[in-house]
Amino acid sequence: MSYEFDAVTTLAPVAGDEATLAGDFGTGWLVGKAVNGGVALAVAARALSLAAGPRYPDAIAVTGTYLNPSIAGPLTVRTDVLRRGGSLATGSALLLQPDADGTPVPRVLVQGSVGDLGALPPDDDGPTDPPTDLPAVEDCISSTENRPPSLHKSALLDRFDMRLDPATLGWALGEPSHRGMIQGWFRLRDGREPDTSMLLFAVDALPPVTADLGRLGWAPTLQLSVYARARPAPGWLQLRHETRHLSGGQFEEDARIWDSTGTLVAQARQLARVPR
Amino acid sequence: MSYEFDAVTTLAPVAGDEATLAGDFGTGWLVGKAVNGGVALAVAARALSLAAGPRYPDAIAVTGTYLNPSIAGPLTVRTDVLRRGGSLATGSALLLQPDADGTPVPRVLVQGSVGDLGALPPDDDGPTDPPTDLPAVEDCISSTENRPPSLHKSALLDRFDMRLDPATLGWALGEPSHRGMIQGWFRLRDGREPDTSMLLFAVDALPPVTADLGRLGWAPTLQLSVYARARPAPGWLQLRHETRHLSGGQFEEDARIWDSTGTLVAQARQLARVPR
Repeated sequence: MSYEFDAVTTLAPVAGDEATLAGDFGTGWLVGKAVNGGVALAVAARALSLAAGPRYPDAIAVTGTYLNPSIAGPLTVRTDVLRRGGSLATGSALLLQPDADGTPVPRVLVQGSVGDLGALPPDDDGPTDPPTDLPAVEDCISSTENRPPSLHKSALLDRFDMRLDPATLGWALGEPSHRGMIQGWFRLRDGREPDTSMLLFAVDALPPVTADLGRLGWAPTLQLSVYARARPAPGWLQLRHETRHLSGGQFEEDARIWDSTGTLVAQARQLARVPR
Repeated sequence: MSYEFDAVTTLAPVAGDEATLAGDFGTGWLVGKAVNGGVALAVAARALSLAAGPRYPDAIAVTGTYLNPSIAGPLTVRTDVLRRGGSLATGSALLLQPDADGTPVPRVLVQGSVGDLGALPPDDDGPTDPPTDLPAVEDCISSTENRPPSLHKSALLDRFDMRLDPATLGWALGEPSHRGMIQGWFRLRDGREPDTSMLLFAVDALPPVTADLGRLGWAPTLQLSVYARARPAPGWLQLRHETRHLSGGQFEEDARIWDSTGTLVAQARQLARVPR
């Protein structure tokens, strides 16, 4: 079986330039005309991992700064691996897409470290961040089946099964809680199980947390950082994101993901613009 | 008057290569033999801002990935500005230092967006993150005057005046709280007032939060992201940092800074290695 997320993150070396990889966003990951920013980050981070080599299969800490919205269609990623160490490789990856004249336009600039999450030392006696008080899957609301009219044509929402906590969904009924928090369950619709790469997408899959402040609409990401803390177990993921501070038309959005065993597997933060 | 922080962040274009700037860490910002990671981030972000041009004086969202510890002495920063937009310029900055043979060695790779914090739209009715319950300056403990023997030769501690909340300082007496939080007051010793650039240093100035977990020692930073949310007012800064999750020998450290008027001026997050 071939999975949709594997297709969009498939990259092949460009002939004659082993530091550049080519792929295609297709049309399945769009909200409006823009590709989801988490998908773009996952693609660029995958390129960095491939360029670094097989000893570095996982994103450990990666950050993307967004220059222009990605669109459907072909892409290339130019990688620059600056260091290959014993446990981490570090470098950058610039994702580009051709404009109408074929000139490459930068979409997202990624940097960070890739490595092997399976080779990290065993946990010791520090604090751990437990899952939150999310109601059971069957008590949550499907975002795909209850999408607002503005998202009826969103291809992205067809890629996953998301069940939102009704307590954080008042905004969809015109009654935002103003707490600045949204949480829910998440899995890919075609049954592909989560892995590190998929986490980079999942951290940006929930509706912008500004919806819970009564500010509906797209919140363009300026910068998004993801730390993958462990490889996720199969099954549903728990997603939660929240904001504390809105100023100057910007807000930070902190996202956390727990896997089906209750282990914290990813932490993310982004700075985004408040929807107008 | 010439201030120490202005000296370490002074950069001059390299003749014949306008995208490269040269500076010098000097010897004043060392802990052991390594330059503080926040200082390295501030220097690289300053280079990005200078290369972008006078319309972009402030770091808005910058991330550094650390390849090798910076050391005392000369440095260069190679910048690559990918986009200059109406409000933000975006690009990367690679800070290098020569090895014994003069070969440039990468220390920290920075990327992000610079702009004008003074030109952001006025705040509107979102949540804001208030200062915490930090005791008054005179009720806190000077880290400079009460430094542990291992830091008697730390030049860094001579650069600032830091007053730590006694409730978060039990670790210094062998009684860590295990809450994973340290907070205190901060200002530069020579009286230089805070600005956006100084915030990039200040987010990394407190002792590693792992000290409060009973894990003393240096916690090498893998990646550090800083969002400057407003230009700070003159006076003392309030610093607070905390961690929620330690796994695989790594932990995240979230830092917040408020200025003397109680405005949140910076948010930072880093992934670091737990001290051995």
